[in-house]
This record gives sequence, C-alpha cells and structure tokens, in this order.
Amino acid sequence: MKKDRSADLELLFNPNSIALIGASNDPGKWGHRILDSIVGGGYRGNVYPVNPRTNTVLGMAAYPGIGSVPGTVDVALVCTPARDTLEVVRECAAAGARFAIVIPAGYGEVGESGLEAERFLVEAAGNCRLMGPNTMGIMSTPSSLYAYMSLARPRPGGVALVSQSGNIGTQILGRGEKDGIGFSYFASSGNEADLSMEHYLSYFAGDERTSVVLAYIEGFKDARGFLDSARKVTRRKPLVAYKAGRTSAGARAARSHCGAMATSDDISDGGFSQVGIVRARTTEEILDLAKAFSSLPLPRGPRVGIISWGGGWGVVGADMCQETGFEVAPLDDGTLEALDRLLPSYWSGGNPIDLVGSLDLDCHLQCMEMLMASDSIDSVVALGTISGFPDFQEHDERFLERSIELTGQYGKPVMLVKMFEGYHSEFIHSRGSLVFSSPERAISALWRMYEYYLFRQALPP
Amino acid sequence: MKKDRSADLELLFNPNSIALIGASNDPGKWGHRILDSIVGGGYRGNVYPVNPRTNTVLGMAAYPGIGSVPGTVDVALVCTPARDTLEVVRECAAAGARFAIVIPAGYGEVGESGLEAERFLVEAAGNCRLMGPNTMGIMSTPSSLYAYMSLARPRPGGVALVSQSGNIGTQILGRGEKDGIGFSYFASSGNEADLSMEHYLSYFAGDERTSVVLAYIEGFKDARGFLDSARKVTRRKPLVAYKAGRTSAGARAARSHCGAMATSDDISDGGFSQVGIVRARTTEEILDLAKAFSSLPLPRGPRVGIISWGGGWGVVGADMCQETGFEVAPLDDGTLEALDRLLPSYWSGGNPIDLVGSLDLDCHLQCMEMLMASDSIDSVVALGTISGFPDFQEHDERFLERSIELTGQYGKPVMLVKMFEGYHSEFIHSRGSLVFSSPERAISALWRMYEYYLFRQALPP
Repeated sequence: MKKDRSADLELLFNPNSIALIGASNDPGKWGHRILDSIVGGGYRGNVYPVNPRTNTVLGMAAYPGIGSVPGTVDVALVCTPARDTLEVVRECAAAGARFAIVIPAGYGEVGESGLEAERFLVEAAGNCRLMGPNTMGIMSTPSSLYAYMSLARPRPGGVALVSQSGNIGTQILGRGEKDGIGFSYFASSGNEADLSMEHYLSYFAGDERTSVVLAYIEGFKDARGFLDSARKVTRRKPLVAYKAGRTSAGARAARSHCGAMATSDDISDGGFSQVGIVRARTTEEILDLAKAFSSLPLPRGPRVGIISWGGGWGVVGADMCQETGFEVAPLDDGTLEALDRLLPSYWSGGNPIDLVGSLDLDCHLQCMEMLMASDSIDSVVALGTISGFPDFQEHDERFLERSIELTGQYGKPVMLVKMFEGYHSEFIHSRGSLVFSSPERAISALWRMYEYYLFRQALPP
Repeated sequence: MKKDRSADLELLFNPNSIALIGASNDPGKWGHRILDSIVGGGYRGNVYPVNPRTNTVLGMAAYPGIGSVPGTVDVALVCTPARDTLEVVRECAAAGARFAIVIPAGYGEVGESGLEAERFLVEAAGNCRLMGPNTMGIMSTPSSLYAYMSLARPRPGGVALVSQSGNIGTQILGRGEKDGIGFSYFASSGNEADLSMEHYLSYFAGDERTSVVLAYIEGFKDARGFLDSARKVTRRKPLVAYKAGRTSAGARAARSHCGAMATSDDISDGGFSQVGIVRARTTEEILDLAKAFSSLPLPRGPRVGIISWGGGWGVVGADMCQETGFEVAPLDDGTLEALDRLLPSYWSGGNPIDLVGSLDLDCHLQCMEMLMASDSIDSVVALGTISGFPDFQEHDERFLERSIELTGQYGKPVMLVKMFEGYHSEFIHSRGSLVFSSPERAISALWRMYEYYLFRQALPP
C-alpha cells in the first residue's frame, strides 16, 4: 500500500498527546529514560504510559494497552522489544494513533529478512504513519517535547535537523547546545520504512518556526523525491546536507547501520548544488553552517573587510578569503582617513586592518563600526577581538553585543573568531553563536552563505 | 657583516642569565609584564632588570645600564621604545651579551626605511645574535623560562614551535595548553633581521628534548636555507609547517606584518613534501598534528580498524579512511570469531565495529584490545567511546588510560574521538592529548603520520 507522500507532520512534531508503549520503571530501559525525558522536559500535552504489567510508571497511571487510553493519541512511541513491535504497531493503528515512532532496531540494517519485517510494519500501521524503525526519537522545542534517547537540551531557535543516524543527530544537538545554536525540531529518521527524508524536509520547508534545515544522509531510497523536497526548502531557506556513505567502505558501513542504502542511488555534487543544497564537507562544518545561517544575514557581495588583533590571523584570513573567492577589498578613502586618525602611524594602512596588539579596546569597536558602515565592504571578519582572556571579559561581551546590533543595523554579516577556547564561553554562546573557532572555518562558512545568496538571487521570482 | 649561520642557540633557549632592558614598574608596559612573567614562571637563572630611572623594579635591584650588571649576560631582552633600540643593542654587544631579543616593532614591516633600520641593528649587534625585531619573545619549559608577551603556560613536553607571527605562535601555545599538548620551546622569530627560521629549525633538529617541530611561516628570506634546515629536522623528527601568504592578498598582509616577504620567494607543495615536511592546511590542523605526532607511534601500514559507539560515526570514519588512502581492513577470522562471542547477534559483522549504543562499557575496551592485538590492523580509530557524559566519567578515564597502555604495548596508534566537548575534559587533556574532536580530524592526522612514516622508510640509512 502506497501512502500519501504529502503527509502533514504538524501533529508529529507538535502533538496534543503521546502514548509511550513499553513505559518502564527500570532506569536501565529506554522505556524509562524516554518517559523521564518527556516529563522532565516540560511537555504540556497528555502523556499516557502503556505497560500491561504495572499500574503506575514514574508515578503516573499506566494503561494495559494503547486501546485503553482515555483519549485520542496523536503520537505512539514504541519502546517494546522487537518481537512485540508488529503487534503493538497494529494496536496503535486500531486505536487511531496518527503517528508511531518505532524505536527498536534489528530491521533493514540486518539484511533481507529485516527489510521484509519493515514492510510488514508499514502494512500493519495502515493510516498511522511510521517514523523509524531504528530511530532515537524526536525533539520539538515549540512543544517542549524531548521524546528521545538523548540528554541534549539545545536552546529553542530556528534550526531543524533530520538525521538517518541517531547518534550523529544527537551529537549535533549536544554540540550545538554547547555552541549556543537554537533548534526547532529534530527527527531521527532511522531506517525510513515509511516516513523518509523528503517528508521531513517538506514539513520543515513550510514551517514558519524553522529558518535553517540540516540533514545527515547515508542513503536515498528515492533520490528524485529527495531533490524535489530539497528544492522546496532551498527556495525559502538554506538546506545544509552532509552525505555519508560516499565510498565503498562507507556505503558498506551504512548498509549495516540504517539499511537505507539497500535500494539507494547516489547524487553527485553537481546534483546537490543544482538544487541549492549547501553540502557540508565535514561533520564539524554542519555545525559551523548551522551557526552561520541561523545567526547572520547573507552577504550581498564578495567584498570582505578584515580586522585582526595581531597580524598573523590577518594573513591567514586574507589567504582564506582569496582562496574561497572573496575579495579582500580596498578600503574607500573616507574609511582610510578615519582609520589614519584612529590607529597608530604604523598601522597596516589597508585591509586587513591590523590592530597591532593595541590594548585600547574601544578602538577595536570603532574599527568594526567603520567597516560595517562602509559602502565598499559587504561582510566583516573580526579575528581575535573576542579574546577569551579572563580580564577582557567585559570587553568581549561588549564587542559581541555591539556586533549583534550592527549586524541588524546594516544587514551585513560579521564573523567573530575567538582567540582562545574557553574562559567565559558560556556568555559568548548564550548570545546567539556568532563566534567561530578559526579564521578558516568562519570564512569558509561565510563563503557558503554567499554561494547560497547567489543561488537565491538567480531563482525566478 | 655576514654572521656565522650555524649559531648555537643552546644559550638562547637555556640561558644562565637574562637582562631585561626597559624593565618597568608600570603594569601597562611590556617591560613590566615580561619581567613579571619571567619571575612568576619560576626561571632559576640570574635576572637583571635594567632601567636608569629607578633603583628597583618589582622589588628587584635595577641597574642603570646593561654595562653595570654584575655578571655575564647570556640573553638581553630589549623592551625599550623603538627610538632607543639601536643604542641599547650596541650596549648589549659591548657588554658581551650573547643574544638580544628585540621586542619593538616598526622595522621591516613598515617598509624600506624600516628594513634599513634592521640592518643597522644587526651591524650594531656585532657578535651578539639578534632575535626579532618585532618579536613577542621566547619560551623554554626545560628552563622554566616564560620571557614573552603571553599568559600561556602549556605543560612541558616534546613540541618545539617557531613562528614568524607572535600572535599565531602564542595562540598555538594557548590552545595547546587547553588541549594538553606538551611543549619544549617557543621562538617568536619576528622580522628575522638576523636569526631566522633555519637557525631555530637547526637547533630543534639536534635538541634531544624536542620530538616534534612546528613552524608558522609567512615568508622565506632564503628558501634554500630553509629547505636545508628542514631536511635536518625531518630525517630525525616530524616537522609540521603552515605557510601563510599563499595568495596576493595574504602576501600583502604578510609584508605589512612581519616584513619577511620583502625579499621572499615561495616554495611549492612539492618542495615541502620532497623534504618530508608535513604541511598543515589550516591553523587548527597545526594543533591536531602536534597532538598526533607528539603522543602516538607512527602507523606502520595502511590498515585501519574502526570502533564506533553508534553507527553514524562509523560510516563517516570509513568514508574518511578510504578518501585519504587508508584501507578499512577486513578483520581476520580469529578477531571475527571473538567479536561474535562478545557482541549482540545483530552487530555489524565487520569493520567498522558498531557497538550499537551498548551500555556494557567493558565491551568497548575488549573490542579495542582485540583490534590492537590483531595482526591485520595497523591503527585503531575509536569513535565516541570517550563520551564526555558526566555519568560516564569513570569509564572515559579508564578507556583513555588503557588506550595509552595498549599504544605502548603494541606500538600502534589509537586515535580517540570524543563524542562531546567539555564535561570532564580536563582529565582527558591532562593525559597526553590523544583525544580528537571529530573523526575527520583524527583520521586526517593519522594519514599525515602514515605519509611521514613512508617518507622515513624511504630515506637512505
């Protein structure tokens, strides 16, 4: 039975009620941990623990089966042992659940027999749409819903993530949390027996709360369907995708992991860029791009102005700009004259602006303001002016706050690169994650933003 | 006057006495900060503050000039205003100082007049060798000497660093400190009016305390001399070099920064690899390579075994291995059988070994031991088995300790990649920095180690 491909996932991500089948009082079981995570996370809808062998779970009334739950179930989360799953999914469908999230593994990723078991699951689900199997669950900050096998609690924001690997997905959330990136949704799509990449992408494309979409992909069941849904995203908002399983060794590993490659075909780099996908080249770059696209306006031209607190990073930044395709733009006469008045006579005299280790921190800010205001500069890269030194905390915070203001005022991106990790990074991360860890990573992300800007400009209106 | 190019820098890095010309009681001056850093850092040689306008600096007796210091001066550190520097250097030479470290800027980096001033400095120095000008100073952990403009206090170890940029150099030390990398020496070579890259490299080549050499380079005054000294290093120990100023924008920035490009010529990628230099492609990679080369034995073959706590990183790791040139090697029958007995029936059945989220942490260790012991594996990559979760701290520490033991026992490298930043990273960093932040960065560093192994193998005996 071919299901309707345009499934509306609004009730999956923002359900009014959840039943957890396999809810448990044993802290070693996922049926305990996930329920604990849902309740502790502050979800405000109805939660129905289901377990035929107990009356209460975590102090809540438990029901013997989903059929006996007193109310409609939007999402049934299935944490039972794999041998019971087929029957449980049938019961979910009979009880009118709209979505079933099937946690157990041991399906398509173990081979042909597992693939057959997946087909039985989908058939048993009828009109109930399946997420998984072999999924780690779902997260939705608009609904304060953390129905998943992870302790990550990233702050709310505009980044939505779909990942065929649960562990990569939750790693992105955990690292994103440390880095201050704000998320709307996360879907661990698992083996994608029913709902697949393109359903999630289509939903994120239309969702107003989502401004950037991330996808971790190991294989496509339907490459054309993927590209169609990707196009829906990219004409409205950036889609950052990482494709694993690029080599024979990687594809072999992917088959034994999410099973998705079993009937896959691949898409070339050209295919990705044709539909405007921003292809992340490393797992770290996924986060850099999430940060850049979610915090900053797109650059509207190739002219970059660099400020550097010390010359070395200025050289590294200038190389990187030119190697990516940016212009380390000449400064206009007005800006040059103003800088001559501001800086010591032995300043670099051009772009990059070398602050020559000046301890006059106001001067750093004034230089940035001049570049932001200059008509001959489209983006600003500020290297090391966020120092990370404990005694410069006040300055770092002021620099960061002012950068955010100027970004809004001029509609230009400013990429901040901190000199050191650590010290007072919590404040830095709490303010919207504009801070990158190296000149190369910042400028590389800026370039990908510019490429996406050009893609959007070239779209028919 | 052409000086002897084979200067012995032993007394520069491990001096018996230092005079600080321009020592100051004003905390806003470098002449104060550097003296404070020398004394606070625990240097045990004689320290002579020189300042004609006061009797004491920081509670120590001050001398009106270097000539009145009661004893020989191995190193004179010159912190006076630029206009006095020429005269001060002349006095250093007259007093018999062996080395003068000239901090002030405003020389070759400001143009032709500055280059001429550099030549005067060198002439005035006579037999006294000059470091700088425009240098941030020197660090030597064997002598507990922190005679520089930086708060970094990395732990002692085998990594020596020479950098034409003071700020990049001190950033590497600061980030290396956070990352647990152990350093022997740091030289901020500055404008290299006299002592230059090749002198420092030659010293590091012969120094027993140094096992890995790092160089940050913006320009060569003598490309052939650089390659000759690089060869001296690479036949004995790895030399990791980052070359900035690769583009016209970068070269322009470099000229206004350290002046070194004024008479430079460049060296191709081929030139670097011909003499066995490991060329770092980003500033972050410099640190990854320092970590890898200083903590781990070289891989002696291309066969990599991967353990992954969750499938996604296994796929990413397998792709990365194959893309660099490694083999994701088939496991031998003995190892396969042992893994079959150890892991759940639905394990991945091969390399990468997917630990499928198993919470049996002993099992992680046993898998690693099997791979380390296997004759069909040359290197091990363990992804996510150091989790960073607070409740897994004990396991993470045991895994790390055991990895270090096995590395010694089998003489094979094991690259550990932590799942998350943070939590208990201090312990992780204190134990010798084997832990990398992503599969891509770990495997890329491993490949560079393998390339260096092959270079060494091909050297005539």
